[in-house]
Amino acid sequence: MIIIGEKINSTKKSIAKAVIERDAAYIQEEARKQQAGGATILDANCGTLDAAVEPEALEWLVQTIQAAVDLPLCIDSPNPAALARGLAVYKGKPLINSISGETERFKQVLPLVKQYNAAVVALCMDDRGIPAVFETSAEVGVKLVQDLLNEGIAVDDIYFDPLLRAIATDTAAATDCFKLMALIANKFPGIHITCGLSNVSHGLPERKHLNRAFMVLAMEHGMDAPIIDPTDPVAMALVYAANTLLNKDKRCIQYTRAYRQGKLTI
Amino acid sequence: MIIIGEKINSTKKSIAKAVIERDAAYIQEEARKQQAGGATILDANCGTLDAAVEPEALEWLVQTIQAAVDLPLCIDSPNPAALARGLAVYKGKPLINSISGETERFKQVLPLVKQYNAAVVALCMDDRGIPAVFETSAEVGVKLVQDLLNEGIAVDDIYFDPLLRAIATDTAAATDCFKLMALIANKFPGIHITCGLSNVSHGLPERKHLNRAFMVLAMEHGMDAPIIDPTDPVAMALVYAANTLLNKDKRCIQYTRAYRQGKLTI
Repeated sequence: MIIIGEKINSTKKSIAKAVIERDAAYIQEEARKQQAGGATILDANCGTLDAAVEPEALEWLVQTIQAAVDLPLCIDSPNPAALARGLAVYKGKPLINSISGETERFKQVLPLVKQYNAAVVALCMDDRGIPAVFETSAEVGVKLVQDLLNEGIAVDDIYFDPLLRAIATDTAAATDCFKLMALIANKFPGIHITCGLSNVSHGLPERKHLNRAFMVLAMEHGMDAPIIDPTDPVAMALVYAANTLLNKDKRCIQYTRAYRQGKLTI
Repeated sequence: MIIIGEKINSTKKSIAKAVIERDAAYIQEEARKQQAGGATILDANCGTLDAAVEPEALEWLVQTIQAAVDLPLCIDSPNPAALARGLAVYKGKPLINSISGETERFKQVLPLVKQYNAAVVALCMDDRGIPAVFETSAEVGVKLVQDLLNEGIAVDDIYFDPLLRAIATDTAAATDCFKLMALIANKFPGIHITCGLSNVSHGLPERKHLNRAFMVLAMEHGMDAPIIDPTDPVAMALVYAANTLLNKDKRCIQYTRAYRQGKLTI
């Protein structure tokens, strides 16, 4: 099971402040807490900073996290210059977040994927934007994955992100997303499926219930690398439970280990 | 959405005590709490009592609950004599729990179903016991439902119960159960699918996480009438969330209503 810890992201004010002030202790504590919660990859994002200062900040962020924990990082920016700077100092095999079917972005990020033999998050969108209906997203997603494979990227280095829409504006958003995940998982065996799943509940109250139920359902449709808060014990307990129920946990070993580690006692 | 409230069941010591002492206030409070939590049907079971006294106790239990709440009841006993006594005093259309493919039980309960124009829970088992593998359970389940239809029972009066096994002894128990639910739901449109879902976690620690994740997943495979504790706000919030995600909640009306009623604020 792959758990991408979402918490080091400058959309959170406390993270933005810590990055701007170069508060290594705060960032490293966030990293350690996510590792303790069960994260297997940590997102590193300071994309809300000004484009002029983000590259240097991302370089610092990568070095700061790697000095504290030994987990792989998901180097996350819409800005190819920031990605390049973060990747240059990164030790190990990185996960780049993200490439997409947009012509410019594909052209700018692909060389970085190749240069660093990186895994990459592939966002299901193209020059027309985020597809609004299932049929278009299926077409865009299949083309994007196929293009990456044609460029020599290994299938298990691709983390497909279906770009989940909000059910408040389209009640078929979640079921369409499940169909898309299943289509991609079946068509490209070995591919990883990730998802920033909190989008689903945008605009609705008490979003955590929707996010948690979505996570459980998405796991059945092939999502093996959710981007979540690994310090949320309720969500993590549901991940362990769903993994076991879906018959991916031989003799319930992972579930009982999580129990012995105190992760299920809430 | 149908929610069968499971709490009035004499396997719980406090319920057994209240039934034996004919403590109407206690039973009625349990009934009201379940209705407030969102139950749409209440189970009424005192099957752990001695067979000689259970029929009279079930009669009392049915009358006691119906005096307090206006929800339909699920009259629940392995003892046809107790069912008959409870049904005789019941007002409205009852749900009988249960019939099965066992020759004797089928013969004894079917006349009650017909006499009271009742809905009925159909347990997926026959004279050989509870099927241990998917193929057998599919065969037993399809035959049982077909037999009921042949007897003139309306499809939407049948609540199919797959008789979920424990994943601790068979890690395919949940996935087999999902397959069986989907098979029955697709083969017999309009049928209800129920499930005593806590069986799945038998023998494992911190069972609630498994029960909750199972419930969410089962809802996707056609379970529309879970037997749960409606006073557990976490479970109920997940039911509302899954119902909405699965596109069964037009314009998210049920979810937002549950929110306004304070049911999602945990």
